[in-house]
Amino acid sequence: MQFQLTDELIEQVELFIEQENDKELKKFLDEFHYADIAEILDELNLEQAMYVIKLLDSETTSDILMELDEDNREKVLKNLSAKEIAEEVEELDTDDAADIIAELSESRQKDVIAQIIDDEHRAEITELLAYDEDTAGGLMAKELVKVYETWTVAGCMRRIRGQAKEVTRVHSIYVVNKEEKLIGRLSLKDLIVAKSDQKISEIVKVNVDYVNVNEKVEEVGRIMAKYDLEAIPVIQSDDNKILLGRITIDDIVDVLKEEAEKDYQMAAGITGDVEADDSILELTRARLPWLFLGLLGGIGAFLIMEGFEGLFTGEAVVLFFFTPLIAAMAGNVGVQSSAIIVQGLANDDVRGSVNSRLIKEMLLAALNGTILAIFLFLFVWAVKGEMLVAFAISVSLVAVIVIAGLIGTFVPLFLNKRGIDPAIATGPFITTSNDILGILLYFLIAKSILGI
Amino acid sequence: MQFQLTDELIEQVELFIEQENDKELKKFLDEFHYADIAEILDELNLEQAMYVIKLLDSETTSDILMELDEDNREKVLKNLSAKEIAEEVEELDTDDAADIIAELSESRQKDVIAQIIDDEHRAEITELLAYDEDTAGGLMAKELVKVYETWTVAGCMRRIRGQAKEVTRVHSIYVVNKEEKLIGRLSLKDLIVAKSDQKISEIVKVNVDYVNVNEKVEEVGRIMAKYDLEAIPVIQSDDNKILLGRITIDDIVDVLKEEAEKDYQMAAGITGDVEADDSILELTRARLPWLFLGLLGGIGAFLIMEGFEGLFTGEAVVLFFFTPLIAAMAGNVGVQSSAIIVQGLANDDVRGSVNSRLIKEMLLAALNGTILAIFLFLFVWAVKGEMLVAFAISVSLVAVIVIAGLIGTFVPLFLNKRGIDPAIATGPFITTSNDILGILLYFLIAKSILGI
Repeated sequence: MQFQLTDELIEQVELFIEQENDKELKKFLDEFHYADIAEILDELNLEQAMYVIKLLDSETTSDILMELDEDNREKVLKNLSAKEIAEEVEELDTDDAADIIAELSESRQKDVIAQIIDDEHRAEITELLAYDEDTAGGLMAKELVKVYETWTVAGCMRRIRGQAKEVTRVHSIYVVNKEEKLIGRLSLKDLIVAKSDQKISEIVKVNVDYVNVNEKVEEVGRIMAKYDLEAIPVIQSDDNKILLGRITIDDIVDVLKEEAEKDYQMAAGITGDVEADDSILELTRARLPWLFLGLLGGIGAFLIMEGFEGLFTGEAVVLFFFTPLIAAMAGNVGVQSSAIIVQGLANDDVRGSVNSRLIKEMLLAALNGTILAIFLFLFVWAVKGEMLVAFAISVSLVAVIVIAGLIGTFVPLFLNKRGIDPAIATGPFITTSNDILGILLYFLIAKSILGI
Repeated sequence: MQFQLTDELIEQVELFIEQENDKELKKFLDEFHYADIAEILDELNLEQAMYVIKLLDSETTSDILMELDEDNREKVLKNLSAKEIAEEVEELDTDDAADIIAELSESRQKDVIAQIIDDEHRAEITELLAYDEDTAGGLMAKELVKVYETWTVAGCMRRIRGQAKEVTRVHSIYVVNKEEKLIGRLSLKDLIVAKSDQKISEIVKVNVDYVNVNEKVEEVGRIMAKYDLEAIPVIQSDDNKILLGRITIDDIVDVLKEEAEKDYQMAAGITGDVEADDSILELTRARLPWLFLGLLGGIGAFLIMEGFEGLFTGEAVVLFFFTPLIAAMAGNVGVQSSAIIVQGLANDDVRGSVNSRLIKEMLLAALNGTILAIFLFLFVWAVKGEMLVAFAISVSLVAVIVIAGLIGTFVPLFLNKRGIDPAIATGPFITTSNDILGILLYFLIAKSILGI
């Protein structure tokens, strides 16, 4: 039953399109899940993709649209009229509908919204569009099952039958008072197990998790993952607790994946959301700036080494041969320590003062550095036979590792305090600055030890 | 309502423990979610944590156990008798119960299992322990709501009331035939909306996603994320489709998070699952091996440069000052290209042949390399005034970048084909080998261009 995107499959679809064999094409695609059809469309050219979209009914195509690659969706939307987009949007839950519309230009947004027939749907989408996409409000949907605390279980079941038809998945039933304030929650299970003449207020669970509409999505994700929640209600403010919407775990899965991918790419020196299948130009745009930063760092290293050109005589020449080693070690240590801090911050388990972190990293780096330096000392002494040179290089290595570790620890903590994404620190940024600083430190220390 | 782990809070708990004020301590902790209590216990020493665990009832402590840091859980379990662990396990769902037991030594596992009173629970846990923890079987729970296709909606509702009490969350109701073969699914909503005298076989949705018990957890996660599933049934084999258990999305969220963290740490040159709060010794064990690899790489670079010592005269001396630049660029390009491949592989969207990937990366690297080389050429020419040297360095840079890009692309693809986690490639492994190879290539090319 597993879907496999094969070349044969795509060729088959392309053939149906070429032959304009609508009946067979529809029958063929009906076998697949919309997420699979989206994968197929991602492989077709725009004209072919549009052909398929015009062919299938809007219930399916709206779901397909949500699953398309962002670039492809943009192209498809450009080829649809405002009325056609409104028809797609009409089929979607409010959160997905708002996401689609948010991707359009402002003037098109107005055109599309004006074409939405269902008044309530239009009003709800307009409300959602007002929230920042990085907040709970930008992620929530208006669809939820809501009951009043004064209802009975039987009355509740009757009305839920009506509400539930519009809600894809009933995770929780939210209980509100007549001011729409969130009082608690119920599961469908609770309702089924309860007696039909009981009042909702008797069986409601008042211990309900919720998030504020302005809460950052990362924090919403952390809360839902920590408490194993499958849906969380969103309230207007901590004072009035008015129920505005709900966020479901599948949206959070997407957020967590995106976050992780972004951090990973940042650590690798890639910006923007690129994929292996993007064009060379898009990939260049994502990669070249960081490489350029590395180039500048290398030029910095060159200038420092040139400044020490005077050492270029006798035994000290060997110092120059160890600069790649010093630079590499400074870079590695820096990335290690900043990665641990970045991950700790993401999981919200970096507690205690900055100073205690720095002291710990200093001890750790000194320990690691000393072990590595002893090895390096023995190697250089054995190979070059000059103990003082070996000593100078090894002592510098320890110093460079300690400083790199401290910078790697400090920079993400500092960025985080300033409200900047600390993951930036792990990329070529830390490596490059540590490279330069490491080489400078190395020559300064070695020079003073050798007394030249 | 947001929980904040503060020093005051921990001091309060410590004070209650010191005073042996059980009543107040219990009242104080009852306010918190078990995940929060676990966070508090993680900050206490073992003796204090044991005090709290002995105080609270096993319904709460079993959940707390699941949320503790692995190291702390191990210590706590060591301090509990087999009978006490069995009592905790009795309260847990089968999947969590099996996870806890799997962490014990083999002889203790037997002792604990023997002490489980509920026969069915014991049999189910024993079954789950037999599956590999990286497979669907290792992740699934036996708790699920199952109905037979021949039942009526009314009969179904009656029996579900019984089954549902044992299932924390009813995501889907699975429909089986009398051979226990998975036929389809239903939602509680479908059941509520249906007429009470309808047969289940009339309203069952036969298009049900499922996974094989031997499927890898990463693949299960990918499927659930792609199709937005909140639970997926697990079957014994594709032939008999016998329903064995179900996996819920909250377990997958944990898997996805762990995967992402592992990849991220691997890219940063950290092995093992370490956190910022781990001991210096644990962190050293996770970091030092990779640093040592970097040290060996640096020694390799030293040996290469020493081999070219003859160039150390006249204009060519400047070549040595650019080795950190060359090494840094080789490392950065290699990490960038392998990170993109690793991420593509994880998302299952690296299609097409290895050759086409390599050709694309070659073009990309050549483009990036040329842009960077032109800049470097102008810089060296302007600063040093020697066009041929500037030319030699720049041409080498392009070659180094192209080779680094190819290696970065090839290695993860190769590892993946061999069934090895490609994420290994992104760490210091790629950087170090690219450093050495880059420097070697650089001197070889520069030497031949300069004709020295």
